[in-house]
Amino acid sequence: MRDLIEPRVLKGFRDFLPDRESERLAILRKLEEVFRLCGFSPIDTPVLEYAEVLLGKGGGETDKQVYRFRDHGGRDVALRFDLTVPFARFMAAHMAELPLPFRRWHGAKVWRGENTQRGRYREFMQVDFDIVGADSASADLEILLLMRRCMRTLGMERFTIHFAHRGLFNSFLGRLGLESRSVEVLRSIDKARKVGEEKTFDALEGIAGGEKARIVQQFVQPEKSWTASLAKLREMVGPDDAGIERLSAISSCLEELDLSTSFSLDPSITRGLDYYTGVVFETFLADLPSIGSVCSGGRYNDLASLYTHQRLPGVGASIGIDRLMAALEELGLASGAASAPSILVACLEERLLGSYHRVAEALREAGISAEVYPEQKKLATQFSYAEKKGIPLALVIGEKEAEEGVMGLKDLRSRQSYDALALESAIGKCRELLR
Amino acid sequence: MRDLIEPRVLKGFRDFLPDRESERLAILRKLEEVFRLCGFSPIDTPVLEYAEVLLGKGGGETDKQVYRFRDHGGRDVALRFDLTVPFARFMAAHMAELPLPFRRWHGAKVWRGENTQRGRYREFMQVDFDIVGADSASADLEILLLMRRCMRTLGMERFTIHFAHRGLFNSFLGRLGLESRSVEVLRSIDKARKVGEEKTFDALEGIAGGEKARIVQQFVQPEKSWTASLAKLREMVGPDDAGIERLSAISSCLEELDLSTSFSLDPSITRGLDYYTGVVFETFLADLPSIGSVCSGGRYNDLASLYTHQRLPGVGASIGIDRLMAALEELGLASGAASAPSILVACLEERLLGSYHRVAEALREAGISAEVYPEQKKLATQFSYAEKKGIPLALVIGEKEAEEGVMGLKDLRSRQSYDALALESAIGKCRELLR
Repeated sequence: MRDLIEPRVLKGFRDFLPDRESERLAILRKLEEVFRLCGFSPIDTPVLEYAEVLLGKGGGETDKQVYRFRDHGGRDVALRFDLTVPFARFMAAHMAELPLPFRRWHGAKVWRGENTQRGRYREFMQVDFDIVGADSASADLEILLLMRRCMRTLGMERFTIHFAHRGLFNSFLGRLGLESRSVEVLRSIDKARKVGEEKTFDALEGIAGGEKARIVQQFVQPEKSWTASLAKLREMVGPDDAGIERLSAISSCLEELDLSTSFSLDPSITRGLDYYTGVVFETFLADLPSIGSVCSGGRYNDLASLYTHQRLPGVGASIGIDRLMAALEELGLASGAASAPSILVACLEERLLGSYHRVAEALREAGISAEVYPEQKKLATQFSYAEKKGIPLALVIGEKEAEEGVMGLKDLRSRQSYDALALESAIGKCRELLR
Repeated sequence: MRDLIEPRVLKGFRDFLPDRESERLAILRKLEEVFRLCGFSPIDTPVLEYAEVLLGKGGGETDKQVYRFRDHGGRDVALRFDLTVPFARFMAAHMAELPLPFRRWHGAKVWRGENTQRGRYREFMQVDFDIVGADSASADLEILLLMRRCMRTLGMERFTIHFAHRGLFNSFLGRLGLESRSVEVLRSIDKARKVGEEKTFDALEGIAGGEKARIVQQFVQPEKSWTASLAKLREMVGPDDAGIERLSAISSCLEELDLSTSFSLDPSITRGLDYYTGVVFETFLADLPSIGSVCSGGRYNDLASLYTHQRLPGVGASIGIDRLMAALEELGLASGAASAPSILVACLEERLLGSYHRVAEALREAGISAEVYPEQKKLATQFSYAEKKGIPLALVIGEKEAEEGVMGLKDLRSRQSYDALALESAIGKCRELLR
């Protein structure tokens, strides 16, 4: 016998079996409908790009995680590691053909050679949505409302979208004389939710001394009301900061829309080392705080500056579909999208093949999903196949039924049988039992 | 100024702009619904696999086209070049967890470093569907019916699905003493549709001599009726060939289902050098014969023999989505799936932001797609944006309307305006105008 090849997948990569893939498709369809409702257009970009396009001329911190190689033509190419960089390249290339401000969404896989020990996948799916070509409170708000609508459409109720302003935080660090240490301060604040206040204080104290550490912690602490938070921020940064004005406009709109329970003005949100310059947001689940943010984003000054001199401000967010699926499953909110059809047409006699397929086609025309068992086997085998796959009903046509132009229907859940039904009655009975 | 990076894509790769991506998503959604109706489950596999898994231990003809490299861990990896090999690996890995016979579909991108001068893309999308774990006329027929349903669901009317039997053709070549030349004969027959009968004869004559060339051409020539074709094949191959019996069972079922106009028993179909062993099929469009087959497939003896000793016969087909999209566009059958929303809520006063977003959210709750123009700009600019994007209606709320709690509605197609509508009347009017 020939040597077999082990049918293994790469570490950090996964197969999606029917149940999980049906669930993923159901989530994507729901999000797609939300984007349609909100005027966001779908786009797609290549999985593989010039490494220079994805990494910039220098390359940086992320490089080590990027799948990069030489293709047959000797080109230096890489698999995309997010959907933002390809979108920037896309906008630089197609700006003239698109209506600006432009709203896009893109749901696709990305790849990072990350350490899988932290439970990370090396192939995962993101859904990104952005409005580019406008720097306004309205665009920021549209993304916030869209984030909320995505969560609710997926059945989430107990979530809060936290928002803050990265530019404001930078101004504040400037006033404190901490510009040069801002990377470290950002890192500490970004970790605070995980490590707790005390450890964060210790870290900040190490960076900036005890007094400034206390001031930073005071800054990031949300107050009892948004008004109080805004007043505190205004006091700590000065009255004319554009970030305060933006946060204030967004907050009052959310209050006007009576949505303040879904949102939280939370100055501790910084989005770590990302490239954001304006509002920033993260979404936390009340029942699964440990999972971290399931939908995050913010405003950037200039999306496509690597590729074009035309300034292109934007705001957007990204949903990590794999983390979201894990959360929905844990919360019992998975839709249980069935990939099984409603009816199995059993095969009792090869000779009656034509009848079996005619009945199946008639059911499909009536909008009822159906399959024909592909071989003549014992009925018990066929029913057990149906049960394993999750098919609730079976139609049985033997010699006698075929002669009389009728069929038997069996509900595999209740074990109840219905005999000698003509096609139309069988379809009606199926509809009734499936309701 | 900093040097810019040219925002180019790799040769053979493409961006999908909103119109084209909307069209692609619409096609995929329609096919997804067909698969649901017919009991096929979705699966997904990694884009990247061990090269050994995709190429076998030896590697072969296709290797040169495969994107293959070493990852960070030094693993020899490759991008999938079709959806069949990953499916074989998938079945070997998960057979025990799946209901057999198993019906799957998989729609995803694949990559081949092909010569782009022939108008081929290096990144393209396939939709595959298969039934594995059964070798029966019923399974063959189910795939043929599914191919027909896919075409019709996409709006195709004038197509024919040609079917034949590769095993039968092999038996025939055996009887002619041409086993050792069968690869060359298959290649010639496969090209016949493109190069014509005369050139095919010349090629066959070179391979097998004039007499055998004539016999081969007689074999592959469809007769006036399926019965006549079957009689000829039976005479030329002998009565007991399993291929004849299979073709005969399939043909009579198709006739019984009154579908013989969608199908053609055509012995010239061989699927070239592919691995098929039973029935083979190709789909041609009457109005676009030159584009070649848009949906092809066949039966294979043993899907997963590289990875497991368990025999897994199957039958399936594959749709080349890029070629299909080109065909639909050329035939004027593109669905024109709009990615534009129905309503633009214009922005006249930044101060009224809350009202604009409240109206947009109310429209979305009513199932009407809407977006808020994100900046305060001249109305003419906003209307021209709407027209460029294809948004048919605009809602206008100025100072005065806001005070009175009403809005203006403008139909940008007819230029007709409707004034002072309360929210509910505006929603009703929008519904009426969008009908």
